[in-house]
Amino acid sequence: MSGEDAPAEQQNAVDQKQETKPAEEPKAEEPKTEPAPAAAEASPAATTEKVPEEDTFTYRALVLTGYGGYDKVKLQVKKGKPVLKAGEVLVRVKACGLNFADLMARQGLYDRLPSPPVTPGMECSGVVEAVGEEVTDRKVGDKVMALNRFGLWQEVAVVPATHTFLIPEGMSFEEAAALPVNYITAYMMLFDFGNLRPNQSVLVHAAAGGVGIAATQLCNTVKDVTVFGTASASKHETISQGGVTHPIDYRTKDYVEEVRKISPKGLDIILDPLGGSDTHKAYNLLKPMGKLITYGAANMLAGQKKNLIAVAKNWYHQFSIHTLSLIQGNKSVCGFHLGYLDGETELITQVMSTILDLYKQGKVKPHIDSTWHLEQVGDAMRKMQERNNIGKVILTTEPMPEEEKKEEPKKEDKKEDKKKDDKKKDDKKKDDGKKEEKKDDKKKEEPKKEEKKEEEKKEEPSKEEK
Amino acid sequence: MSGEDAPAEQQNAVDQKQETKPAEEPKAEEPKTEPAPAAAEASPAATTEKVPEEDTFTYRALVLTGYGGYDKVKLQVKKGKPVLKAGEVLVRVKACGLNFADLMARQGLYDRLPSPPVTPGMECSGVVEAVGEEVTDRKVGDKVMALNRFGLWQEVAVVPATHTFLIPEGMSFEEAAALPVNYITAYMMLFDFGNLRPNQSVLVHAAAGGVGIAATQLCNTVKDVTVFGTASASKHETISQGGVTHPIDYRTKDYVEEVRKISPKGLDIILDPLGGSDTHKAYNLLKPMGKLITYGAANMLAGQKKNLIAVAKNWYHQFSIHTLSLIQGNKSVCGFHLGYLDGETELITQVMSTILDLYKQGKVKPHIDSTWHLEQVGDAMRKMQERNNIGKVILTTEPMPEEEKKEEPKKEDKKEDKKKDDKKKDDKKKDDGKKEEKKDDKKKEEPKKEEKKEEEKKEEPSKEEK
Repeated sequence: MSGEDAPAEQQNAVDQKQETKPAEEPKAEEPKTEPAPAAAEASPAATTEKVPEEDTFTYRALVLTGYGGYDKVKLQVKKGKPVLKAGEVLVRVKACGLNFADLMARQGLYDRLPSPPVTPGMECSGVVEAVGEEVTDRKVGDKVMALNRFGLWQEVAVVPATHTFLIPEGMSFEEAAALPVNYITAYMMLFDFGNLRPNQSVLVHAAAGGVGIAATQLCNTVKDVTVFGTASASKHETISQGGVTHPIDYRTKDYVEEVRKISPKGLDIILDPLGGSDTHKAYNLLKPMGKLITYGAANMLAGQKKNLIAVAKNWYHQFSIHTLSLIQGNKSVCGFHLGYLDGETELITQVMSTILDLYKQGKVKPHIDSTWHLEQVGDAMRKMQERNNIGKVILTTEPMPEEEKKEEPKKEDKKEDKKKDDKKKDDKKKDDGKKEEKKDDKKKEEPKKEEKKEEEKKEEPSKEEK
Repeated sequence: MSGEDAPAEQQNAVDQKQETKPAEEPKAEEPKTEPAPAAAEASPAATTEKVPEEDTFTYRALVLTGYGGYDKVKLQVKKGKPVLKAGEVLVRVKACGLNFADLMARQGLYDRLPSPPVTPGMECSGVVEAVGEEVTDRKVGDKVMALNRFGLWQEVAVVPATHTFLIPEGMSFEEAAALPVNYITAYMMLFDFGNLRPNQSVLVHAAAGGVGIAATQLCNTVKDVTVFGTASASKHETISQGGVTHPIDYRTKDYVEEVRKISPKGLDIILDPLGGSDTHKAYNLLKPMGKLITYGAANMLAGQKKNLIAVAKNWYHQFSIHTLSLIQGNKSVCGFHLGYLDGETELITQVMSTILDLYKQGKVKPHIDSTWHLEQVGDAMRKMQERNNIGKVILTTEPMPEEEKKEEPKKEDKKEDKKKDDKKKDDKKKDDGKKEEKKDDKKKEEPKKEEKKEEEKKEEPSKEEK
């Protein structure tokens, strides 16, 4: 995850414009269900006659074309096969994870993403289609999950082999795309900064979110840990089943009061994705020797475009702490964001290895909220931003069936999602995750072709992104 | 260590004035080498005829009479046997530990000490001489070490039984008085906030001080931990032998540069007792996922009286951190001070139990710099404040021999100290720890009788101290 690791294809590819909806017909070279043969990289693709593959190779990529609303992320077609540098692998992407940082990035609030036009995406799963020189521990055909600072929301992605992790037996591509960011984040917060031990108490905000569910599962790997989890009432049943000891409806109740009723002395660990005034509350809610771990500023996100009032309010209320207060309180304040852990490959690999062991033991398992086609990225982001998800929101690179393109996305019951999770037929299943009450909103947001064309500037391969 | 636990004798005792030097003859009731008989509490002392012991019982106590220089701590004689409340024990004190907080307290810079007149002292060792009701796990004759917010620098101390810990076989009273504050502090910083693990790197400031030596020893209980330790060059040999990997002479070198030469990426854990601008340096010297643990503001101490410029400078440079910076750096800032861990008896007991196990395994052992009579408390404090100590500065309640009172304190070689440590005849040995080069200074500081009498106000037993 070094800063120099921008996907190589961004330098090689020449992009082609493509409307988000309706999408073009999938190209012949597009998502293959079998891994490409090992020779694919060196020799011209068999499907084209004598034209070099470098010219005919195309793939679809999501591109953030400018800061703003959900429609700023467009589906484009890029041309030209990425050239691998030593140590890199080319991954045929199957599924991608959405993260809060992606939502921040779209509004221009995340400085780890280069300026638009750029392909976002911090995690994906897929199959290794080619390996560069000096890659010894990955081979063509390996099923992997990948982590990168950005650039993974596309059908083919180039990443250093050290940023990939082998998918264990029985884990679907959707689960694999859901796992890295949320579980590494939750693990490092709880077990590195938090130093979680038996009998301790933890507050997990947004307990039904990706990190929230991961954190709850990880808390439950330690004996007698009490988990307080905030979520709207409709999600309480799910998070209780998932291991939250005390669900709190933050919309109708003061979570500080609720926690104090049960744990008058306060808490050992608080995970704070909110920022602003909630960080102050969290600090005051810590026990002596308590740890506050802040990992975001979700309070800054109000509406789909950058909300200057929300940003200013968050900034104004931003938590600032003097050491004297820390000393007198015997408290710890930590900040975590995986996106800034550039270059800590060894550390991340170690943590991933532990998490995958826990997965194999059945102790953790990503919970997929819904899976969306690349064309539906706007809706997928909206679902997450409006906190209508339970668990992870996933993008799939599977082509969108013609009939789905022509009609409104189908309503989907969340309970169906859960069943699908269990069936593990993730690659085959599509879940447009649409809630009926959002249809009206959605129509307003439906990207209009005319506007889009103006906004889509030619994406010049940029050296800066390298 | 609850805030309500001011030693009970402070409410009962009626003080008598006593000159620090020369001291009065030890009273018949004063330090006994054998534990008092179990009946001592209930029945009048055998040595006095028919006068109730409550009236004849006297003991010497150090009293902070006002904020200021070394001479503000006076030796006084108090009268009246303390009455025990349920859960308390009366300890016949053998040795007391000096801590940096005591130096801060003398200057009025430590808010956990009630206003003068008050007896300072956070730790001591001794023998249980009486137990109050409901005390089941301590009995008369038990050798114990004790921790309290203050009030332990006297010949008899009353503390809750839960604030005492049994002294293990083979540990001297001096070691026992040296252990609690320094080792609990170092342990909780390294293993609770710091979450120290194999292969990590730690910066220990004042590595030859009490906490510094404890921290170094504790670091060495973890595999392949690299310890950077600052100390003046003359102490390097000792701290190297004690386990510091890279000693740094902070007086002649920039410790930040020295660390970077060896560990360019920075450090995993930094223990910061200095405050002010050194906290800023420490923060910048942290690796990603690094932890800065600040536990004091030694930089505020400049000279023996409160130095307003030093205090203001420290305040001005006081470290204040925004959560955004923590997030972007993936860093943790923690504050620790044992004096504010009121009421965390269970936690402290658990930590002490672990430390005593390490002692029994020979993995940790307090290093005594020097032992001083109660009359010499000013010199003892000076030695610590001027950073001339290597290890712990201890007070003993043993009466000062007549010949020592009449002549200047003897010069003492530090190497002699070390030998004495090893001999473990701590109770019998006195070490006035005087360095020849300080004689001149000392004469100036020698408390003058006339001044002292004026300063010594009648110490009214104070309800507020309760």
